[in-house]
Amino acid sequence: MAAAALANGDVRAGGGGAVPRPTNPMVTPLLTDLYQFSMAYAYWKAGKHLDRAVFDLYFRKSPFAGEFTVFGGLEECIRFIANFKFKEEEINFLRTALPTCEDGFFEYLSSIDCSDVEVYAIPEGSAVFPKVPLMIIEGPVAVVQLLETPFLSLVNYASLVTTNAARHRLVAGKPKNLLEFGLRRAQGPDGGISASRYSYMGGFDATSNVAAGRLFGIPIRGTHSHAFVSSFLGLDEIIDKALSSSDGSNKCEDFVSLVENWLVKIQGASSLRGSFGETNQSELAAFTSYALAFPNSFLALVDTYDVMRSGVPNFCAVALALNDMGYKAVGIRLDSGDLAYLSIETRKFFCAIEKEFGVVGFGKTNITASNDLNEETIDALNKQGHEVDSFGIGTYLVTCYAQAALGCVFKLVEINKQPRIKLSEDVTKVSIPCKKRCYRLYGKEGYPLVDIMTGQDEPSPKVGERILCRHPFIESKRAHVVPQHVEELLKCYWPGNSFEKDIDANLYPLVNAEAVQREELPSLNENRSRCMRQLERMRPDHLRKLNPTPYKVSVSAQLYDFIHFLWLNEAPVGELR
Amino acid sequence: MAAAALANGDVRAGGGGAVPRPTNPMVTPLLTDLYQFSMAYAYWKAGKHLDRAVFDLYFRKSPFAGEFTVFGGLEECIRFIANFKFKEEEINFLRTALPTCEDGFFEYLSSIDCSDVEVYAIPEGSAVFPKVPLMIIEGPVAVVQLLETPFLSLVNYASLVTTNAARHRLVAGKPKNLLEFGLRRAQGPDGGISASRYSYMGGFDATSNVAAGRLFGIPIRGTHSHAFVSSFLGLDEIIDKALSSSDGSNKCEDFVSLVENWLVKIQGASSLRGSFGETNQSELAAFTSYALAFPNSFLALVDTYDVMRSGVPNFCAVALALNDMGYKAVGIRLDSGDLAYLSIETRKFFCAIEKEFGVVGFGKTNITASNDLNEETIDALNKQGHEVDSFGIGTYLVTCYAQAALGCVFKLVEINKQPRIKLSEDVTKVSIPCKKRCYRLYGKEGYPLVDIMTGQDEPSPKVGERILCRHPFIESKRAHVVPQHVEELLKCYWPGNSFEKDIDANLYPLVNAEAVQREELPSLNENRSRCMRQLERMRPDHLRKLNPTPYKVSVSAQLYDFIHFLWLNEAPVGELR
Repeated sequence: MAAAALANGDVRAGGGGAVPRPTNPMVTPLLTDLYQFSMAYAYWKAGKHLDRAVFDLYFRKSPFAGEFTVFGGLEECIRFIANFKFKEEEINFLRTALPTCEDGFFEYLSSIDCSDVEVYAIPEGSAVFPKVPLMIIEGPVAVVQLLETPFLSLVNYASLVTTNAARHRLVAGKPKNLLEFGLRRAQGPDGGISASRYSYMGGFDATSNVAAGRLFGIPIRGTHSHAFVSSFLGLDEIIDKALSSSDGSNKCEDFVSLVENWLVKIQGASSLRGSFGETNQSELAAFTSYALAFPNSFLALVDTYDVMRSGVPNFCAVALALNDMGYKAVGIRLDSGDLAYLSIETRKFFCAIEKEFGVVGFGKTNITASNDLNEETIDALNKQGHEVDSFGIGTYLVTCYAQAALGCVFKLVEINKQPRIKLSEDVTKVSIPCKKRCYRLYGKEGYPLVDIMTGQDEPSPKVGERILCRHPFIESKRAHVVPQHVEELLKCYWPGNSFEKDIDANLYPLVNAEAVQREELPSLNENRSRCMRQLERMRPDHLRKLNPTPYKVSVSAQLYDFIHFLWLNEAPVGELR
Repeated sequence: MAAAALANGDVRAGGGGAVPRPTNPMVTPLLTDLYQFSMAYAYWKAGKHLDRAVFDLYFRKSPFAGEFTVFGGLEECIRFIANFKFKEEEINFLRTALPTCEDGFFEYLSSIDCSDVEVYAIPEGSAVFPKVPLMIIEGPVAVVQLLETPFLSLVNYASLVTTNAARHRLVAGKPKNLLEFGLRRAQGPDGGISASRYSYMGGFDATSNVAAGRLFGIPIRGTHSHAFVSSFLGLDEIIDKALSSSDGSNKCEDFVSLVENWLVKIQGASSLRGSFGETNQSELAAFTSYALAFPNSFLALVDTYDVMRSGVPNFCAVALALNDMGYKAVGIRLDSGDLAYLSIETRKFFCAIEKEFGVVGFGKTNITASNDLNEETIDALNKQGHEVDSFGIGTYLVTCYAQAALGCVFKLVEINKQPRIKLSEDVTKVSIPCKKRCYRLYGKEGYPLVDIMTGQDEPSPKVGERILCRHPFIESKRAHVVPQHVEELLKCYWPGNSFEKDIDANLYPLVNAEAVQREELPSLNENRSRCMRQLERMRPDHLRKLNPTPYKVSVSAQLYDFIHFLWLNEAPVGELR
């Protein structure tokens, strides 16, 4: 989305000129809970629907027993509000769903868009922490309520799966190739497409999902399945046996015989002698066929019958035949069994082939592992030792099996400039009132030390100046910080029609009255880079798997006092009897 | 889909005339794994792409530590294949994704549809068990491979969430009202919409999701949130205080005063005296406003400040004022705290109100509970005792938190009439070869006893005739059964162009050569009824939560022998050294 688009009235009016619609066409203003409409009606009946409300979107606890989360889903939220407008048939449906509501209400619904809404957000792909708003949404209370469910639906899973992917990257290590293979097990088709997108953002290298590759420009990978192997009965099925060499200089008229000859040589090689007997001929036929179709990118699934007694020797026979023709085989995939053991044995076999036949580099042939991998199994493989170069990860990644939901919430913090608080028996569920500003304070060593929330009108923390950071609820937890660098976390991604407003720079300090700077929505690759850069910048103990140190989240002294004043004010006094 | 539609050539040709497109527009032929295309190319290069293949779609283990699964997703699969056709821009994208493939292949892809494919399936909403194919898909191997990923993506989550919903229904009991509230926590927007649809199929009564209600005709429910309560500051915000009576015969000009009077009466009532002090006035204002907007369906969320000291007395004041005007309040919702205790205390309060003020039936006012409910918490509430009438269930239902994925697989079982098997180190992962027929055998007491798979050409089991049912892999496990009723499980939902084929009744016994009967796709409500009926018919110990008895799944003696012949034939012989 280029800055030029901001000049387009259609966009600001929510007409959808320059900001594309949500990726999933099912994301419409009806994709919300019914109570958002019944509340809108009650606000409208009470004449309160235009009351200016501020909501925070935040979560209370990082997922996967970790102490960090990566924020995802912002672009889709902005696409949603940029195109927010009810169609006539949607209004007609709402009339049937809410038959007692007055006509005037539906006329009001027909008229609304998000031009009166403002959205501030932390950039997508950032490391984020509990209680700090990922997004602040301000606007007419009835309209902003209608955004609650779609925003949560767009942010919750996106952030969860991005975080899950980032955790897989952390445990696998930077040099490994991470492939997302989850479409078939995802929670619905869109779950699969979102998983591919946000796994890539969290640090994966590629996906198997063609639709996601097309939509988001993610590299796509994949070769063949067990069914391909078992669909062949034998080598005599291969009719066209010819293969031209890589440089086109010569042609092998019978590549099948070349493969068979190599298999005999491997079987007879002294260093490999007796390590396997007859290999499976269906499998050999399948591999040979696949190599004839993709001589430049031959990668074979080797566990349909038996990895070490059939799959790996068959692969090597085909790979060596390809090598004769100037092609370099890519590698193998293991999809069952003891991946540590099998990868090590396969590597030994590859090295023995390299030595036996003098094929330089054959020992380094790629080994991909799949089969129900997750953070735990990769960690266990690392501890045992393994020779896997690439991990294909499906079910556990895309369904976030270890924790299938992130609990983002959307809470009213201010209405008509009156701060609001939501109380709860459970202190962790008390909301932090007021429209806030949020900062990340960095220490001498370059690490982020603490996030701090302040009231909207407080001066911002200054580099080199001591500031008191207080735990929002626990009186005794507080610390002085002298930041070396101060980063304001929330930027304006949707200014509504504040372009035209007579801007009060105190109330909207993020908005420059001269020319409103709406943050551009970065590309997926930029968000992916931000994610990786931010996690590299964190102190490692916040990110570790076992007993990670919680990152500190705080409020200013002034905001602390105000929270507790409001809390006492709203809570009923108990009566002991 | 009426039978008349079958006469339409467009449908059979995959042109999409009468069978609607998939509900989610993102479900296109590109929504698949890249390897389906690379395999299709390798088949095409080898001249094998038209080989007639049979695949089974099945799962290996029921989810949630249970012993049953409910099949969902069939209608979407049929919609998908009925409209399966590549668009030119999709082909163009594939050219870039597979740059080394020959032009002829893309011309072939452009030409294909699913008119040569046949799909047999168990009816949607049926109770299903491991290893028995939910669907059998037959057709040209290259085309059927392209269906693997979308079919799995459409069936896996649908079946998982339907099963989860059915389990919630079983634990909650028939009379309780079950509401699906999960959209905001679902895995993506489509996860939310699918969850609403399949939760309803599994036995839920309604959803909060407006889009799903519109798409599928599911009842929609919802009232208001905490934000609505805290958006009010006090009663003076209410401008229009008038309310006409239910029958229109009179009008109360100041409904707010009527509410306030009732609150004073409640506070002064001897049976309630001293059970609470001052209630929260923002909350009272919010409830009163909501009642003015929805006098016929007043349901209040009572835990924003304090359930027993504020929310419930405030609700009762408004409900009694509504009662004066001829309206019956619906009830309250509890969204935090000890739901067993609070529901019981609330019920006592309602009963005391009924007695104190002689409002007949007030004691039975509905109590809805929400807040992170799941199968376990409902079970725990049942054990403790509670007074909840309706459960609103979100996160744990829609994300299937207890087990976020079902592992349906899609395995080649036959090609060109040659049975195929996939071996594995893990016996439970060995596939059952051959195109099969599957039956459910019922015993004297009317319960299903066992599912049996036979070869396609075996005679079907007969009522009253003894048949040997064998465990597919464990030699010693077998039993004789004399069925009282035999049900063939798989029906033809997509006959391809077998309409025109010269049908061999032995090979296609499900197909009547006279007039091919394609099963109609039932409505969601019919599938829901089937689900509930089938679960009622199961022996209860298969369904219970704790240590359920596995339902037996077997093969005929002939199929057993054949599996083991093929297994020995394909497995390499080990060499001990």
